[in-house]
Amino acid sequence: MSRASAHALGAPLVTIIGDGQLARMMHQAGIELGLTTRVLAGAADSSTAQVTPDVVLGDYTNRDHVEEVSRGSDAVTFDHEHVPNEFLEALIAEGINVQPQPKALVNAQDKLVMRKRMREIGAPVPPFMEITSMDEIREFFDITGGNVCLKTRRGGYDGKGVWFPATADDAAELVADLLEQGLPLMAEKKVQLVRELSAMVARTPSGEVRTWPVVESVQEDGICVEAVAPAPDTSASILTAAEELARVVVSELEVTGVLAVELFETVDEAGQPEIIVNELAMRPHNTGHWTQDGCVTSQFEQHLRAVLDRPLGDTSPIGPTTVMANVLGADNDPNMAMRRRMDEVWRRYPNAKIHMYGKEWRPRRKMGHVNMVRTEGQSVDELRTAAREAANYLVTAQWTDGYTG
Amino acid sequence: MSRASAHALGAPLVTIIGDGQLARMMHQAGIELGLTTRVLAGAADSSTAQVTPDVVLGDYTNRDHVEEVSRGSDAVTFDHEHVPNEFLEALIAEGINVQPQPKALVNAQDKLVMRKRMREIGAPVPPFMEITSMDEIREFFDITGGNVCLKTRRGGYDGKGVWFPATADDAAELVADLLEQGLPLMAEKKVQLVRELSAMVARTPSGEVRTWPVVESVQEDGICVEAVAPAPDTSASILTAAEELARVVVSELEVTGVLAVELFETVDEAGQPEIIVNELAMRPHNTGHWTQDGCVTSQFEQHLRAVLDRPLGDTSPIGPTTVMANVLGADNDPNMAMRRRMDEVWRRYPNAKIHMYGKEWRPRRKMGHVNMVRTEGQSVDELRTAAREAANYLVTAQWTDGYTG
Ligand SMILES: Nc1ncnc2c1ncn2[C@@H]1O[C@H](COP(=O)(O)OP(=O)(O)OP(=O)(O)O)[C@@H](O)[C@H]1O
Ligand SMILES: Nc1ncnc2c1ncn2[C@@H]1O[C@H](COP(=O)(O)OP(=O)(O)OP(=O)(O)O)[C@@H](O)[C@H]1O
Repeated sequence: MSRASAHALGAPLVTIIGDGQLARMMHQAGIELGLTTRVLAGAADSSTAQVTPDVVLGDYTNRDHVEEVSRGSDAVTFDHEHVPNEFLEALIAEGINVQPQPKALVNAQDKLVMRKRMREIGAPVPPFMEITSMDEIREFFDITGGNVCLKTRRGGYDGKGVWFPATADDAAELVADLLEQGLPLMAEKKVQLVRELSAMVARTPSGEVRTWPVVESVQEDGICVEAVAPAPDTSASILTAAEELARVVVSELEVTGVLAVELFETVDEAGQPEIIVNELAMRPHNTGHWTQDGCVTSQFEQHLRAVLDRPLGDTSPIGPTTVMANVLGADNDPNMAMRRRMDEVWRRYPNAKIHMYGKEWRPRRKMGHVNMVRTEGQSVDELRTAAREAANYLVTAQWTDGYTG
Repeated sequence: MSRASAHALGAPLVTIIGDGQLARMMHQAGIELGLTTRVLAGAADSSTAQVTPDVVLGDYTNRDHVEEVSRGSDAVTFDHEHVPNEFLEALIAEGINVQPQPKALVNAQDKLVMRKRMREIGAPVPPFMEITSMDEIREFFDITGGNVCLKTRRGGYDGKGVWFPATADDAAELVADLLEQGLPLMAEKKVQLVRELSAMVARTPSGEVRTWPVVESVQEDGICVEAVAPAPDTSASILTAAEELARVVVSELEVTGVLAVELFETVDEAGQPEIIVNELAMRPHNTGHWTQDGCVTSQFEQHLRAVLDRPLGDTSPIGPTTVMANVLGADNDPNMAMRRRMDEVWRRYPNAKIHMYGKEWRPRRKMGHVNMVRTEGQSVDELRTAAREAANYLVTAQWTDGYTG
């Protein structure tokens, strides 16, 4: 079911499977490129469908829908990693240009496959093991001295699907339970997190690669709440290593489009900072939203250019530091219209770039984000506080610092 | 006739009368503000209709169409100045929020009305006179010593509707001819142009005002080809005077939304630089496109915020200089797909921000623009050359400087 829509003659057509904020922001970026985006959306009022004319309503788990929406596209891409790879293989067999391709995507879908691949290419990962029985988790518990992080191989997000069992018995019981639910599992060593970093990079099918400055990402309860670019107080060697690692991963795995390499910063046995790959995302990523207002080329524009195999844009930062703070639904939706909350934020911070996703309130839901570029005389900490205050006000209608105008 | 569309609950709705690139870029800017834009479009494949879901097909010279599209909006605004003011008065009588209002708009529609108003508020304009007869133009020719610029009061654009008759007889003949066609006329003194400047400003109905840095705009054959921000090699006093003038005009005329004050820079009798108002535009303007990539808040976002009476955004520039070069249809459309031309430009200039409007080629047609922010070590002249080369390549598929990659 498709709404009527008129395209510019000869404009490249990119089909995006998915209707969330990422597709929404890709459409926004595509407008100035003069290209057409078509989306496969689950609902007519979804985040993307609200703002774009070429909406095909359907279900990405339905092979016919995926095929129908993809035909005639110059490239097919995604705002999530959940389209079954068999569908994508079928599209490719039909001659449709799918980017990134399933052979790369599997590394963003299956944590065990990804870690094996990382080991192959020499990228740092914690010790890990596939877990198919209670015995295996007991064994892994012993090997790691009880420092176990248990994960579902697939389908985890925002910290769901990750556990840190305290005892071998707890671990075994948990594994029994999860296996019974039919969830394939893996375990890895729990590392001492100093913090989380994200190395973003884009690559075209022809092999052009461009990285963005490495970001520090702050998580709360498994959800990204803040990203600071470039990662503050970070040694040049770590920044270079992270960027280089992203280059290696994107090239070795032949990822196309934008890749986020989520990293843990930890300390090695000699007490030196060290980075470890945690997760890969093959699409624009929350830790790259800052590029919209903080870089010459945003991740959304770059993704579209990359999947169409067109030259990539300059990724230079625009200001000395940019902070992105997520607008996460509060426990209660305050009794003040969102429009008024935005106004209060703009009044206090005329340089706050508010990005809303057109989503209804739900606790902890990603409803938008705020980008702020550091201004003269402002410290990084002041910038971070400002961005957090802004994002927080948008969901609570309150300033945590007592500001009264 | 309206296409089905689903809006975010409670999102402010801005109706834009018009379907050109300005409405297209307003829609793009509105996406991140979480608001809904609805357009009255003349064609289903017009520049704006290609990229936005809420399209009402209709005619802005039809009162019913204008009323239909406007009902239920939080604000009604425009991408051109041609909606009959009686329609807007009728909307206002119905309680619909029209911004800017007809009392301000008339100054962007009628050059004589505008000049009279400028004189009233003490803004500098050249000597001028309404022309209703051959005798009057002969008189004005004498007064100005033959330095006459004859203009149609309404409907001129891109240099159409402007003449410089060489002799009193030529002038009289031209006037006779134009009056016979029913065109109301005015004449003003032809000034010695040093160059053209543009002072952009935004104002809310509540009276908040923010200016952008003053721009030099370069015209060729009456069409804007380039804008440089801030205006290079300009005395601080001229820049301040121009910005101050924009503040006065926007406030005195109670303009809402974005106002462009097109200025002539000339020299006074003492040989000092002087500015004179040439024209007013009450909407985002070609000389403000650079703000998309060169300012914290673009003119498109600002216009939407202003017409909704919401706090205005920071207008600080992002880089030391930003140049906008228009992509104007060449005499012939080169035999290379636009997509490939863009790719060549990106390959040469990875920091070129290309904005395309989804328009088919026509000679001299505004098909897009290129923004470039000055990078370290680059001179303003180098930046201007680069932006011009980029824009020119997009319509000719040729580098004028012999670049071969
Ligand atoms: N090996 C580990 N050692 C220590 N902490 C870990 C480890 N693995 C995960 N974590 C913690 O759990 C959080 C969620 O883990 P992970 O990113 O793997 O899960 P996810 O839900 O799939 O994430 P995402 O939302 O990024 O998709 C991490 O942000 C980190 O704080
Ligand atoms: N008084 C004047 N003295 C000298 N040159 C003038 C004068 N008025 C207009 N011009 C020249 O003619 C050009 C077009 O004039 P003007 O901007 O009034 O026309 P327009 O077609 O309505 O413009 P626009 O495209 O900005 O709407 C100007 O850019 C300038 O170069």
